[in-house]
Amino acid sequence: MATGPGAHLVDTATAALARIRELRPRVHCLTNFVAMKLSANLLLAAGAVPSMTMDARAMPDFVESTEALVVNLGMLDPWRREAAPVAIAAARQLGRPWVLDPVKVDRSSERRGFAQDLLGQAPAVLRCNTAERPLLTVPAGTVLALTGETDRIEGAGRLVRIDGGSPLMDRVTAMGCAASALTGAFLAVEADAFAAAASAMLVMKVAGSLAGQRAGGPGSFEPAFLDAVYTLDARTLECEARLP
Amino acid sequence: MATGPGAHLVDTATAALARIRELRPRVHCLTNFVAMKLSANLLLAAGAVPSMTMDARAMPDFVESTEALVVNLGMLDPWRREAAPVAIAAARQLGRPWVLDPVKVDRSSERRGFAQDLLGQAPAVLRCNTAERPLLTVPAGTVLALTGETDRIEGAGRLVRIDGGSPLMDRVTAMGCAASALTGAFLAVEADAFAAAASAMLVMKVAGSLAGQRAGGPGSFEPAFLDAVYTLDARTLECEARLP
Amino acid sequence: MATGPGAHLVDTATAALARIRELRPRVHCLTNFVAMKLSANLLLAAGAVPSMTMDARAMPDFVESTEALVVNLGMLDPWRREAAPVAIAAARQLGRPWVLDPVKVDRSSERRGFAQDLLGQAPAVLRCNTAERPLLTVPAGTVLALTGETDRIEGAGRLVRIDGGSPLMDRVTAMGCAASALTGAFLAVEADAFAAAASAMLVMKVAGSLAGQRAGGPGSFEPAFLDAVYTLDARTLECEARLP
Repeated sequence: MATGPGAHLVDTATAALARIRELRPRVHCLTNFVAMKLSANLLLAAGAVPSMTMDARAMPDFVESTEALVVNLGMLDPWRREAAPVAIAAARQLGRPWVLDPVKVDRSSERRGFAQDLLGQAPAVLRCNTAERPLLTVPAGTVLALTGETDRIEGAGRLVRIDGGSPLMDRVTAMGCAASALTGAFLAVEADAFAAAASAMLVMKVAGSLAGQRAGGPGSFEPAFLDAVYTLDARTLECEARLP
Repeated sequence: MATGPGAHLVDTATAALARIRELRPRVHCLTNFVAMKLSANLLLAAGAVPSMTMDARAMPDFVESTEALVVNLGMLDPWRREAAPVAIAAARQLGRPWVLDPVKVDRSSERRGFAQDLLGQAPAVLRCNTAERPLLTVPAGTVLALTGETDRIEGAGRLVRIDGGSPLMDRVTAMGCAASALTGAFLAVEADAFAAAASAMLVMKVAGSLAGQRAGGPGSFEPAFLDAVYTLDARTLECEARLP
Repeated sequence: MATGPGAHLVDTATAALARIRELRPRVHCLTNFVAMKLSANLLLAAGAVPSMTMDARAMPDFVESTEALVVNLGMLDPWRREAAPVAIAAARQLGRPWVLDPVKVDRSSERRGFAQDLLGQAPAVLRCNTAERPLLTVPAGTVLALTGETDRIEGAGRLVRIDGGSPLMDRVTAMGCAASALTGAFLAVEADAFAAAASAMLVMKVAGSLAGQRAGGPGSFEPAFLDAVYTLDARTLECEARLP
């Protein structure tokens, strides 16, 4: 059972997840082709409603009808290059929070420059891994959700670490991208971006841990993970949270 | 056990599904990136053979070598904007039936105009949901397959309602898109578009109901649904059909 | 238990799979939108690390940071048309092996011409099916992996046939594309392209056979297949290999 800051996070995450299930917020994801299906299914399993169009012309309409925006740079293509700045501008004008996932900036210098430009547009949360982190300068107002064996969420003088999950999470493509999408759902119902990011990462770790116990490998892990998110209750979140 | 018009639909659907399994018709889908994998897998599970290229140059070759065409406007992109009219023109010239799925026209005024233009090209079936329906004018010769908690198929003075399915169907992305793809397979083997659309919707509802009984959440629902379509037999269709 | 050339292939495949799991080679795939998720998940299940960007600008960076390249022509689009020659040129300059999968060249004359041009760029392996094979001229130095009910791998005067698998493999979209992706992983750790291709096809057949025994249809086949690849051991490979 979690105590101290941990107990607080479990309560926050439980309440936020309940709001997602009740309010069914819309989340628009500009994400890569490998990640789309799992990201959409994770949002649905959590209770949110995804949209995914990348057409720059449709961006203002779609961003206006959603409560949060997720911009993922995996497999960066010409459509998202054009749509991302339009979507982000619309989100900022409307006061919608947005998440940046700078996938594989450690593998492409050109993508790194694009990611750094977007970081100047005040994302509520930057979600990335330990290979990507050193290549980016994080603005003061952005919460950093750094995921790995232990997740580390930092922002506005606060810090939380989350253990748990399963080694199988690294054997399923786009689990990190899905974590970013889920962060969008929590931002849609929780004004404190640090609390939203930490809640999303906690749900990922707890559902990942449950799925890891049930799965016979990475193939059965993915459906078990979505089932675990869908059926997650307060008691399980409290019992399974590992907040060192 | 279904009686009246219901009994007739069950027989029609059973016979059409048997023809799909025997003839293995080819169905070309112009669909969105989130929906592609499930649509292709559903067509294969039913016995049809999908193709999915969006290259306008390859459209005439692909449409000619298929028995039905499905045009889905989810995540509408420049390639499908260009390919859809080419594919539809080829289908009409060759006398191939085609299905329109005007995904999320309630979310984008621009997409609505594109959908309405395509509706002028005489689709055999328009498959949409209750949010999309009011925004479109359906031509007289087109069968309407309106899906929701109760499906409603209308055309040429006929009407059938189908109950069943599972609440989990709304928690798996692109199930509606997959229903449109499956309609293409039934159109390929059944000249009566009303019978084809109603048969496809019945198979969706019955397989959805079976999968909903077996699944532990939306993650395990999807494989269970594909298994249910693959193993569906006449007796199960008859016992599980809910035709009020 | 396999004997003769069969026993040799089982040993080779076992050793190569162990190297993939230990070295975790990076494989870059230019593949189609339907195939991406399963190809990435199969590479991860086997122990390799996939990347999938199609942006021509990022090709040199990505190809340089990977050990093998896979070029798949399914749903051929303008991005891959541009990226494929750039990626192949980079791979050849760096001495990285590459695999060609000429999906559905039997359905489009235009794609056939593109595939034949790429065959002139000395792929280590051509992986295709029996409908595609007759339309292409295979260069002398390229290993041919022809898959079907019985796989047939040919090259440099050697030939091996592999039986097994499951009829459900034809009912899951992009299993052939996934076989090509897996060939990339084996090429990354095995300099003999014939041995690499035959090892990849053997793993496909054995894992397919195991998954076929466990699955209730094509939906549950896919997760069972990925689990089987992830958990595959030397003893199972030896017992389940069917090398006539």
